[in-house]
Amino acid sequence: MPRTGARGGPQTRARISEVATRLFLDRGFDTVTVTEVAREAGVSAVTVFKHFPRKEDLLLDREVDAVEFLRSAVRERDPGTEVLHSLRDMTFRLLEERHALSGLKDGSVPFFRTVVASPALVARAREIGFDLQQTLAGELERDPAFDGDAPLLAAFFVAGYATVLTETARRLIAGEAAGAVADGHRARLERLFDALGGGVAPRP
Amino acid sequence: MPRTGARGGPQTRARISEVATRLFLDRGFDTVTVTEVAREAGVSAVTVFKHFPRKEDLLLDREVDAVEFLRSAVRERDPGTEVLHSLRDMTFRLLEERHALSGLKDGSVPFFRTVVASPALVARAREIGFDLQQTLAGELERDPAFDGDAPLLAAFFVAGYATVLTETARRLIAGEAAGAVADGHRARLERLFDALGGGVAPRP
Repeated sequence: MPRTGARGGPQTRARISEVATRLFLDRGFDTVTVTEVAREAGVSAVTVFKHFPRKEDLLLDREVDAVEFLRSAVRERDPGTEVLHSLRDMTFRLLEERHALSGLKDGSVPFFRTVVASPALVARAREIGFDLQQTLAGELERDPAFDGDAPLLAAFFVAGYATVLTETARRLIAGEAAGAVADGHRARLERLFDALGGGVAPRP
Repeated sequence: MPRTGARGGPQTRARISEVATRLFLDRGFDTVTVTEVAREAGVSAVTVFKHFPRKEDLLLDREVDAVEFLRSAVRERDPGTEVLHSLRDMTFRLLEERHALSGLKDGSVPFFRTVVASPALVARAREIGFDLQQTLAGELERDPAFDGDAPLLAAFFVAGYATVLTETARRLIAGEAAGAVADGHRARLERLFDALGGGVAPRP
């Protein structure tokens, strides 16, 4: 009876998230209750809440990964490497790997549709963006090798990356081919890093 | 009996907002109900909801003004003037006027304290920021004289201005003198526009 064992373990957490995601993508976020998720995953609602204090986090479960990517872009960059350079490498790696955080992972269309259809998920996604901005600003402020404006760099990077993701999601939802969307994503990343490094003013 | 007349008028709207703001600043946003606001303003709860569909908007009532400032910075700038230039003028004018949208208006400390203490107000303030970003991006996209990246400029400007406002609010709440906070605000605006025009990379 694996379903009754190790309710606190990472396998249980993964199963709950997987079941919840399937239900939300099938039937919409607002119509599926946490009780249904618990029943379907073979655990109690208390166990669900223990792993996911907010219902939104059952679907938006990548914040920990994103924090990890930002931290390592700051902390593990080679000495002498500008942080914009390591952030650039990170975002292009996410793109090439079709990582979920690039928006280009296989099967992300129903995910984006579900998020866009739920004001609660949209609000939570934005909140996560602000948390990530704080994380990045904090990392930069603690980094003796960084001497720029940490809050400003973090604000520009996170808000700018959100515009890239939003456009990628919009084009995928509109039914454009994945290859064309990935090309557009790449071009927008280039423009993002051009603007971060050199400003958003149109060149004369 | 002025309180019973013209329930739909701008005076009624202004009175409701004024009463609500006083109650919220006195007792906190979450503990004051819309029913209490209505009673105190001498109108029905229906009238309150007619003017302010969300409770948060009773306190955060400057979005219309902000939209107007952004629109006029784009539409009413002199021919040949860069939009970054007119946005810069706008933000420095708000600062010099100690406008509410600079965060430096007299008496804004209890306002900031009330917002910071309420997750609902913080969330709504962020949502308004996203709306304003969309507004600015849309204005730029429709402007034949603008040939930069509209979503990116709007994202950088709004996210960057939010960092300036947040720091101003933080320092005022911490009890710093208004003059020193205004000087810091001015310095951060300069850095914001330096970064918008020339990038966030530290200068070698």
